[in-house]
Amino acid sequence: MKKIEAIIRPEKFQALRKALSAAGIGGLTVTEAAGTGKQKGQKGIFRGTTFQLQLLPKIKVETIVEEQRLDEILDIIIKNCSTGNIGDGKIFVSPIEETIRIRTGERGKEAVL
Amino acid sequence: MKKIEAIIRPEKFQALRKALSAAGIGGLTVTEAAGTGKQKGQKGIFRGTTFQLQLLPKIKVETIVEEQRLDEILDIIIKNCSTGNIGDGKIFVSPIEETIRIRTGERGKEAVL
Amino acid sequence: MKKIEAIIRPEKFQALRKALSAAGIGGLTVTEAAGTGKQKGQKGIFRGTTFQLQLLPKIKVETIVEEQRLDEILDIIIKNCSTGNIGDGKIFVSPIEETIRIRTGERGKEAVL
Ligand SMILES: Nc1ncnc2c1ncn2[C@@H]1O[C@H](COP(=O)(O)OP(=O)(O)OP(=O)(O)O)[C@@H](O)[C@H]1O
Ligand SMILES: Nc1ncnc2c1ncn2[C@@H]1O[C@H](COP(=O)(O)OP(=O)(O)OP(=O)(O)O)[C@@H](O)[C@H]1O
Ligand SMILES: Nc1ncnc2c1ncn2[C@@H]1O[C@H](COP(=O)(O)OP(=O)(O)OP(=O)(O)O)[C@@H](O)[C@H]1O
Ligand SMILES: [Mg+2]
Ligand SMILES: [Mg+2]
Ligand SMILES: [Mg+2]
Repeated sequence: MKKIEAIIRPEKFQALRKALSAAGIGGLTVTEAAGTGKQKGQKGIFRGTTFQLQLLPKIKVETIVEEQRLDEILDIIIKNCSTGNIGDGKIFVSPIEETIRIRTGERGKEAVL
Repeated sequence: MKKIEAIIRPEKFQALRKALSAAGIGGLTVTEAAGTGKQKGQKGIFRGTTFQLQLLPKIKVETIVEEQRLDEILDIIIKNCSTGNIGDGKIFVSPIEETIRIRTGERGKEAVL
Repeated sequence: MKKIEAIIRPEKFQALRKALSAAGIGGLTVTEAAGTGKQKGQKGIFRGTTFQLQLLPKIKVETIVEEQRLDEILDIIIKNCSTGNIGDGKIFVSPIEETIRIRTGERGKEAVL
């Protein structure tokens, strides 16, 4: 299995979610993040009480998929999240060694979807 | 070392934390997340100002452990986080190549706990 | 590529960011987290509505870098985030198999910075 981690524009999330769902990818974990790429945060706001910094608000979307579906899912993300302007985001792919559905104890392939 | 990432029901966190602590696992990082599995979010609320979506609130618990303790810790999570109802969550395991305690610069085994 | 994940004191973030930027590392993703190490959270507060627990507020900083820069970046983090007191944080290193810049579709080395 692979973890696909996409740091995207918040306003692109709904379109991405629909496209992934249409492709049969229902399993998603979403986190609020903030970041900088080459483009440094300008008027960025991050909702922390403990620190204030010039970062741009982003959404981190994580989906664990079977390796055979990796390229297809990467294409869906690129297609749905790019505007052509700086700040469209990044995708990182990393290995996942085990997946478990807590309710049933199922592992691997059976547990991913 | 392995990273265990568990996406669980928020209301199960306290029990899980106690069980892990009793097993000598004190090192935990917790993040607020939102997600969907096969079960699609219904009246989900996520505390974002930047986007509103139908996702269910979840807690992501990450703990880096030595490989020899992996199965034991997975069992503790499954036991403490399952209700038998859909939405109990998922566990993902991934490789960690280095661990460093910032205060001392210790690495590896010495830095995990 | 490697992912460096540092769980640090929130008050150290600005110094770390400046030091990384001076070293040419602009790509950072920041998340609010909460955690415990050996030191258990005392009067910790975490901004969740869904659970209340005794955890200490931390910042998770993630940066994906080329492997050849790994040791240098680890040193910058240790140097900028340690106070010598318990609770300075941890660093975890893990493998990243692919990096994509969504705007251009660039991959690998070209997409990291
Ligand atoms: N090397 C990196 N490590 C970790 N996170 C990164 C890295 N690079 C970018 N990010 C995350 O991705 C988000 C979006 O990055 P961004 O799209 O601005 O990348 P970029 O390289 O500057 O590309 P562009 O030129 O299209 O803006 C950042 O806000 C940050 O959260
Ligand atoms: N493939 C996946 N990739 C990333 N996150 C996932 C994936 N599958 C599930 N999750 C996360 O786990 C959370 C809980 O998932 P859930 O327990 O509903 O899984 P499920 O497969 O639908 O199992 P169940 O049938 O028991 O509900 C989701 O809200 C999401 O955050
Ligand atoms: N094994 C671990 N797995 C996941 N997260 C961890 C682990 N250990 C520590 N953390 C995270 O790192 C944060 C800081 O940990 P901390 O610096 O207190 O580590 P420590 O081992 O107790 O070292 P010290 O003795 O210097 O306090 C924790 O709040 C938690 O978020
Ligand atoms: Mg940019
Ligand atoms: Mg479900
Ligand atoms: Mg500690």
